[in-house]
Amino acid sequence: MYREEIKVLDCTVRDGGLINDHFFEDNFVREIYGAISASGVDYMEIGYKASKEILSPDEFGKWKFCDEDDIKKAIDGIEKNTKLSAMVDIGRVEKKHIIPAKDSVLDMMRVACYVKDVDKAIDLVNEMDSKGYETTINIMAVSKAIEVELDEALDQIEKETKVKAVYVVDSFGSLYSENVHYLVNKYRTHLKTKEVGMHAHNNQQLAYANTIEAIRKGANFVDATVYGIGRGAGNCPLELLVGFLKNPKFDIRPILEIIEKEMLPLRQEIEWGYIIPYAITGMFNEHPRAAMALRKTENRDKYREFYDTIAAAEAD
Amino acid sequence: MYREEIKVLDCTVRDGGLINDHFFEDNFVREIYGAISASGVDYMEIGYKASKEILSPDEFGKWKFCDEDDIKKAIDGIEKNTKLSAMVDIGRVEKKHIIPAKDSVLDMMRVACYVKDVDKAIDLVNEMDSKGYETTINIMAVSKAIEVELDEALDQIEKETKVKAVYVVDSFGSLYSENVHYLVNKYRTHLKTKEVGMHAHNNQQLAYANTIEAIRKGANFVDATVYGIGRGAGNCPLELLVGFLKNPKFDIRPILEIIEKEMLPLRQEIEWGYIIPYAITGMFNEHPRAAMALRKTENRDKYREFYDTIAAAEAD
Repeated sequence: MYREEIKVLDCTVRDGGLINDHFFEDNFVREIYGAISASGVDYMEIGYKASKEILSPDEFGKWKFCDEDDIKKAIDGIEKNTKLSAMVDIGRVEKKHIIPAKDSVLDMMRVACYVKDVDKAIDLVNEMDSKGYETTINIMAVSKAIEVELDEALDQIEKETKVKAVYVVDSFGSLYSENVHYLVNKYRTHLKTKEVGMHAHNNQQLAYANTIEAIRKGANFVDATVYGIGRGAGNCPLELLVGFLKNPKFDIRPILEIIEKEMLPLRQEIEWGYIIPYAITGMFNEHPRAAMALRKTENRDKYREFYDTIAAAEAD
Repeated sequence: MYREEIKVLDCTVRDGGLINDHFFEDNFVREIYGAISASGVDYMEIGYKASKEILSPDEFGKWKFCDEDDIKKAIDGIEKNTKLSAMVDIGRVEKKHIIPAKDSVLDMMRVACYVKDVDKAIDLVNEMDSKGYETTINIMAVSKAIEVELDEALDQIEKETKVKAVYVVDSFGSLYSENVHYLVNKYRTHLKTKEVGMHAHNNQQLAYANTIEAIRKGANFVDATVYGIGRGAGNCPLELLVGFLKNPKFDIRPILEIIEKEMLPLRQEIEWGYIIPYAITGMFNEHPRAAMALRKTENRDKYREFYDTIAAAEAD
């Protein structure tokens, strides 16, 4: 697949940071940026933007806040082929803490929201847009969205913002290809002047397949992470996506090298990937929190029992 | 997805046996059959049928031969809801060693062949058919098949055999959904009186996705293994497939239980799954043998170097 408009965003550090509360070593972030930039990937999301009055630096590492100085230090001396992005959750950043883009190393800000919070998201992206950032809105948990509310939200975003892209976010890793086709088609129908994005989770080993399916249906912004790192089951593996895309600007080799150098050792310390409790919450279209909780107990591998618990809760 | 015609075949012991030369403990095979039978899965392939004059029992475990007494012992006392199958490679079994189905615990025999060997496969399935077995032909490495030869082979199978199904076998884990759609449509066009089957490999995390895509296009025989076990990257995970299929006869819970009981410990002893060198051979549509060889050396995790080696060989 080659289409010039396709933009790949690596969110290794941002989504991976959800596993370890964003406490990555400086050198890890630096190595990842070096590999991503060398691979020709368009964007790298380096963390969240949050105000320290709202979230405590005692509880979260520096990539929950993305201070300018921390980012500058992490990428200093590396050739910058890849734009930088930060994600913002609704209610976690004060507008006064968003500095003008011309004074920032960040190029893009992406606002993550549920459908119900779309008005807040629109307000926020317009603030960011006025300060010179590229923006996107990432609609989380779209597999649980009420359809008429989703339609209205998309129409509002189309009319009231200048975002580059609006993402289908399969937060629970529950979408099948036919759902992806349906949602990308729906987004494209409502969003005449924006691109459609895809952010997939790998609970059912479908993150990469669904990302390809989104691309086939016209999505041009696609998220992935090195070796599929990400909370719970993780995300679409960047190395597979780059292996699939034929755009000559991409080079898979720096990504393969960073897997052997950084991701294999990291995987020994923190877990992500195909793990049965996450597959089960994906099957039930449920938030992975019950699976995350289970993995911290001695029953972490009691799969049948966990299935029965989730099935019983569904039946209630 | 619910379609009464869909038949699921578990090949945990047969395809998994390619990792350890079929040296499974008796109790493992027994436990797997118990779980598969309890889950309502239609068939279980318990190993290969081979003649001991051709392959040596010193080199291979008992599930390379599937002696009647060994199978009987393995399933003795378990309620038999699941039919039993054995796979046969061309040239590895003498016809005289195929006993009549009425004297066998096997219900089905599947012949694996490359397109070029289709005449031998037809001869063999007709022998099996005359002895009372259900049969299939599994066309291996279809991603490398010459199209006109594949078309002819399918026409011949349609005319000259009574096989239940003919399989698309993605031996190298290189097919994408559009290839699966194309091949299943092609098979259905040529095979008016047979079912189409899908046997996927998971090199690029697409085995489950491609199996679903094959089902969507009308394939009714689908292979899977518990926890995705299989040579190299492994196969379509049975637990995901059964979670997807809505046929009320299926019960995922015995499969989840056998994963926690048998597959987690086994995965500590032998490896399969998402492993980068297998992803690379999949991307290049190559046999995994170079990746299998690499994994036995100290360079097992030198991914970039391995990629360059394969890329250079392709360019020659």
